[in-house]
Amino acid sequence: MAERMKRPLYYGMVGGGPGAFIGDVHRRAIALEPNTELVAGVFSRDHQSSLETGRDLLMDESRIYRDYEEMAAKESARDDGIDFVSIVTPNVSHFEIAETFLKAGIHVVCDKPLTTELDDAEELGRLVRDTGLLFGVTYTYTGYPVVKKARDLVASGALGSIRFVNAEYPQEWLATSAENEEGNRQASWRTDPSQSGKSNCVGDIGTHVENMVAYVTGLEIEKLSARLDSFVAGRKLDDNATIMVNYQGGATGVYWTSQVAIGTDNALRIRVFGDKGSIEFSQENPNYLTFATLDGPVQTLSRGRDDLGERGGSLVRIPAGHPEGYFEAFANIYKTFTGALRKRLNGEHLTDTDLDFPSVDDGIQGVRFVTRVLESAGKQNAWVDF
Amino acid sequence: MAERMKRPLYYGMVGGGPGAFIGDVHRRAIALEPNTELVAGVFSRDHQSSLETGRDLLMDESRIYRDYEEMAAKESARDDGIDFVSIVTPNVSHFEIAETFLKAGIHVVCDKPLTTELDDAEELGRLVRDTGLLFGVTYTYTGYPVVKKARDLVASGALGSIRFVNAEYPQEWLATSAENEEGNRQASWRTDPSQSGKSNCVGDIGTHVENMVAYVTGLEIEKLSARLDSFVAGRKLDDNATIMVNYQGGATGVYWTSQVAIGTDNALRIRVFGDKGSIEFSQENPNYLTFATLDGPVQTLSRGRDDLGERGGSLVRIPAGHPEGYFEAFANIYKTFTGALRKRLNGEHLTDTDLDFPSVDDGIQGVRFVTRVLESAGKQNAWVDF
Amino acid sequence: MAERMKRPLYYGMVGGGPGAFIGDVHRRAIALEPNTELVAGVFSRDHQSSLETGRDLLMDESRIYRDYEEMAAKESARDDGIDFVSIVTPNVSHFEIAETFLKAGIHVVCDKPLTTELDDAEELGRLVRDTGLLFGVTYTYTGYPVVKKARDLVASGALGSIRFVNAEYPQEWLATSAENEEGNRQASWRTDPSQSGKSNCVGDIGTHVENMVAYVTGLEIEKLSARLDSFVAGRKLDDNATIMVNYQGGATGVYWTSQVAIGTDNALRIRVFGDKGSIEFSQENPNYLTFATLDGPVQTLSRGRDDLGERGGSLVRIPAGHPEGYFEAFANIYKTFTGALRKRLNGEHLTDTDLDFPSVDDGIQGVRFVTRVLESAGKQNAWVDF
Amino acid sequence: MAERMKRPLYYGMVGGGPGAFIGDVHRRAIALEPNTELVAGVFSRDHQSSLETGRDLLMDESRIYRDYEEMAAKESARDDGIDFVSIVTPNVSHFEIAETFLKAGIHVVCDKPLTTELDDAEELGRLVRDTGLLFGVTYTYTGYPVVKKARDLVASGALGSIRFVNAEYPQEWLATSAENEEGNRQASWRTDPSQSGKSNCVGDIGTHVENMVAYVTGLEIEKLSARLDSFVAGRKLDDNATIMVNYQGGATGVYWTSQVAIGTDNALRIRVFGDKGSIEFSQENPNYLTFATLDGPVQTLSRGRDDLGERGGSLVRIPAGHPEGYFEAFANIYKTFTGALRKRLNGEHLTDTDLDFPSVDDGIQGVRFVTRVLESAGKQNAWVDF
Repeated sequence: MAERMKRPLYYGMVGGGPGAFIGDVHRRAIALEPNTELVAGVFSRDHQSSLETGRDLLMDESRIYRDYEEMAAKESARDDGIDFVSIVTPNVSHFEIAETFLKAGIHVVCDKPLTTELDDAEELGRLVRDTGLLFGVTYTYTGYPVVKKARDLVASGALGSIRFVNAEYPQEWLATSAENEEGNRQASWRTDPSQSGKSNCVGDIGTHVENMVAYVTGLEIEKLSARLDSFVAGRKLDDNATIMVNYQGGATGVYWTSQVAIGTDNALRIRVFGDKGSIEFSQENPNYLTFATLDGPVQTLSRGRDDLGERGGSLVRIPAGHPEGYFEAFANIYKTFTGALRKRLNGEHLTDTDLDFPSVDDGIQGVRFVTRVLESAGKQNAWVDF
Repeated sequence: MAERMKRPLYYGMVGGGPGAFIGDVHRRAIALEPNTELVAGVFSRDHQSSLETGRDLLMDESRIYRDYEEMAAKESARDDGIDFVSIVTPNVSHFEIAETFLKAGIHVVCDKPLTTELDDAEELGRLVRDTGLLFGVTYTYTGYPVVKKARDLVASGALGSIRFVNAEYPQEWLATSAENEEGNRQASWRTDPSQSGKSNCVGDIGTHVENMVAYVTGLEIEKLSARLDSFVAGRKLDDNATIMVNYQGGATGVYWTSQVAIGTDNALRIRVFGDKGSIEFSQENPNYLTFATLDGPVQTLSRGRDDLGERGGSLVRIPAGHPEGYFEAFANIYKTFTGALRKRLNGEHLTDTDLDFPSVDDGIQGVRFVTRVLESAGKQNAWVDF
Repeated sequence: MAERMKRPLYYGMVGGGPGAFIGDVHRRAIALEPNTELVAGVFSRDHQSSLETGRDLLMDESRIYRDYEEMAAKESARDDGIDFVSIVTPNVSHFEIAETFLKAGIHVVCDKPLTTELDDAEELGRLVRDTGLLFGVTYTYTGYPVVKKARDLVASGALGSIRFVNAEYPQEWLATSAENEEGNRQASWRTDPSQSGKSNCVGDIGTHVENMVAYVTGLEIEKLSARLDSFVAGRKLDDNATIMVNYQGGATGVYWTSQVAIGTDNALRIRVFGDKGSIEFSQENPNYLTFATLDGPVQTLSRGRDDLGERGGSLVRIPAGHPEGYFEAFANIYKTFTGALRKRLNGEHLTDTDLDFPSVDDGIQGVRFVTRVLESAGKQNAWVDF
Repeated sequence: MAERMKRPLYYGMVGGGPGAFIGDVHRRAIALEPNTELVAGVFSRDHQSSLETGRDLLMDESRIYRDYEEMAAKESARDDGIDFVSIVTPNVSHFEIAETFLKAGIHVVCDKPLTTELDDAEELGRLVRDTGLLFGVTYTYTGYPVVKKARDLVASGALGSIRFVNAEYPQEWLATSAENEEGNRQASWRTDPSQSGKSNCVGDIGTHVENMVAYVTGLEIEKLSARLDSFVAGRKLDDNATIMVNYQGGATGVYWTSQVAIGTDNALRIRVFGDKGSIEFSQENPNYLTFATLDGPVQTLSRGRDDLGERGGSLVRIPAGHPEGYFEAFANIYKTFTGALRKRLNGEHLTDTDLDFPSVDDGIQGVRFVTRVLESAGKQNAWVDF
């Protein structure tokens, strides 16, 4: 573990005001690991609302800013300014905010999808390379320790050569026109192109599928064929998507994501089949991993009970059977990011393991995925090169 | 229940000799219900082998025939000749055998897929209509009582308007080149175009998916887009398939079938999502049905414990928690078929419920499905009208 | 497999008339394996009812007898008389009927519990030894192939020295006073001491638990401490039981059986913990066995997919994922019994594997168990030597 | 929600140094909710070690004390002294530490079991009543939102009159003599009477079972009959326990706890059966609750998807399918405790809902349970009045 600095890491947040789901998640996840403190913020475009959030969090009002430009300028000028910023606003504003903080020399964690336009994502990639700053994207679900083990199993050859991937992510919450319900802020911005971008379902959860498959398998998409559905009357964006994928090297796959799948909660699931074995991971049962081989019985690996290897094992906080969940997975993304940042601030070398959090390049791939899916769907699911 | 004739129903079998999996299944399934007796057979092309099977079954040798033509001719000439024939040979011979028995005036149960060519399937359809004979196709899995309940739930509107179907059928057994193993007759004929026809995976198990979805939902396919894979080196036919389906009326779906999915057994599963609710059925856990609605908690319906309605309920043999399995589902297809046949022989009217077994028309749809999948896959998964 | 006789085995049945659950189960289970024919019967004390059942089964009326004494006498006098009898009457009559057929020189299969009095059970044991006849008791649940594997795993030392057993068998069906519902024959005889004996719940399902544990572990009970409950107002016999067991050699265990456990179906489950590993089997999911060791991940063994050894493997009829259920387990008891009987009739030697069906001695242990439980419960759950 | 004070709540900790499992859990759980800060501590009897922990936590060294007496004295004298203390030391020291802080006027949260002697526990009860201070005991598992729902279902009469409870808590971690492994601090103190008290397994996890059943059902134990096992050679305390319970009013139950159950993780499970319905909760799958009634199908209630009522609902942080786990349950105990404490410090009235955390009285019942179990086990599981 990195030698600890003798002070907390300081961070600021853009977004995450009243009614926002994900900002609260980021704050709690960060708090699960000691020594990272929220000291600055723009929680809302409405400054009064922002101030109230700051007060609820017992923060110093002088560091609740009117807008993110002010925050970037003033925090970068302070000796005790924030070490990194967390961006948890709706998708369309990610690019400008991230660009602003990078240009101010501040490290960034940004919620996914990275941007709504591929050009913007690639521009952020260039900025990260040019500035040398750390940049994390909160693809939560790769933070589970058993997902690390899944990746290790694939990388070790335990599954042999990968043949097929079946990944899905069904939810129920947009099965009705929730965007027209009074006060459902989540539903209204997610389904509104002016805040969400050109895609709702694929942008919000399809991109998790893409990232999870890429992380676990290391496969690169060669081309894809996608069909988008918008089942709820009056909805402007997709709420269901089926995507055939061909990977480089001959493996194939199919992804399904839905927000209208009544009876499901948040059922991200990935199954990877090789010529020697397979793994299966279900996000709703995230302390276990199923692993099967040709010659043996199906095994259930348990976080805490079974050996999860170096990366997975280092993220286990409590013994087996004491379930770690979504916040802990989220915390693991931040734990790795802040661990790397402490080392960076201490002037230490960063290894691949130190950098095992979703990067700006992963973010770019996510936006590319959404973009290609939209292209294919717009051409009657014609194959589109990735 | 139909007034019983004062004798057993008599049946003959074509196929089902040593090493054949499905013939034995048919015989056991028939035996689970009383009063249907196997009295004639051609169990193998090799007459000695056929005689041995007959002897093992303690049958009268004089009714073990040299070929099916002889059997059809002689049995149809006897006063106590067979009431129906079960055809359990490899796919390519189904058509000629079925045609022969129909022309001899004998009712038929035929294993799936009905034929390997769509023209042949349609010709059998005409023959059935012309002769008025009963014709069943053993799509086993619709025989489970809870599948009847699933159909009833959809038909009753409990799911609302269907939006999306996700159905899959992964197996592991052809993950290696089992067809090259000494003595693996199943693997060798299934992967051999001269016995199996133009498709292996879709013909063998994809057609079960198509039938299950059609039975449960009543949806009709408008067009489909299919990708076939053949992952095992040297294999001549498909062993993995991904199929996007558009149904008439706007619902969509995706099917996945595989014979190389290590870690799976025989995992046919169907999920149907409507705008009011959903159902899920897993063939490997066939005594239960999951049913969810927008407003309530997810329910697990149990065969025997919960009300399965008239059709499902009538096929329950034992109380809840005493698992009924594959043979019982198979027996249900035969129970319904032989029940209808007894009524027919008694001169009684047959209701829709009496005829609730997979028909020649279902068999034709199955062959059409395989045909259309091959067409689409041959054109880079272009959409093909059904 | 035993060399086959050139005729079917013939059997008769006592009990199993209209409304009887278990007689029908026996008949179907026997039919799942070829070449055993029902030719004689006393299905009911009411001869007309018995004749009707015989007619429904298309049997020869001359072999539907007025009472079991007549049947034993006449069948034992025929050259083509029954090879064995199945006794499926309520508990209290098992002894006299079994005794009568044994004295007539006819092999016996008897439903469990063997008798209602321990003296009677022991008397049957002496008769079996004296006559040398085969005697099977239909403890169904040890017929599952994976239960054979569980026994083999324990016997092989894979679990090490057994420490603790937790076994349970909850049902719901007597949660209300079902015995007072018009036409519920099962409930009325089960809860009536004059037909069921001194125990309902322990006699009916507790004895399955005792048998399953004894079969899988080989442990012998040293003493037990039992509490019986009778929760439904007006019920004369137990409907819930908790039993602490001490085994010879230092292992301990706890059994729970209930007929008032709302929400359960027929949930027999056994968990065995040794100092090296454990197994778990749930009867409602009977195609799988869970096996864990200290050093490795939890494994799920699948009937058909994984190696079940000689005994288990020989009872698998169909590949993995095609569920075999309750009838098939029942059929396995009969398959082993009739296999042994054929060998006996052929004058062949019977091995331990041939005799791997529940014996009269297992039946005696079951009655002893019920007897000791009643003794302990009558003394405020004092420890009672077994 | 309580009107917030304009400062964080301050707390101190006794115990929780290097190698201690539960202290770290308390700190993370507290951090999941904003605005409670760790400011003082005695993390170890070894002051250097304590200082190091404090430094790792970036705490002010002047408030890392030499012993708890010093901490109680000095903190109670400060204007900005701690609002409450968390006691996370081995069992034997709970009493003296808790007594000291109560006498210093500081509110207390204490890990379970409350004490090792019943007299001590009752003395703490008197002190709490006399001082009027808040006192919480961290019986973690009642903190899960669906457990609140389970309690509400029972209280509402949805299960009818309770008949039977089956609760169990098996673990594997002491299946070998882990206490003799170098560096296994947990195992060594848990199995050492001088640190753990007179019981290991019942004191550590049996008391969770007692608390969970009492919380969910409201049943009061009338008498119990217990058998303790110590399976690992050389072990001084129990590692397995079976306990029959009779409740006031006629319900009965059975509890099983084990630390030698190979293949299990931390499998606390409770099933409650009434005359109208039942519930089942498994701690390892803590986002779901099974609820069944006589007349309907089995329901799976999902945290976040289904209505969990006021208490349960208020503890849900994220939507369904985003698993909340052990830390979140722990955090809920603290969230309720600190919520009540803020109200108290604000001079507000505390309602029953405000006080819905495990109290000193719950702690006393836990110690009474352990005491009675030891009494009964010492008398060959004779019934002992509670």
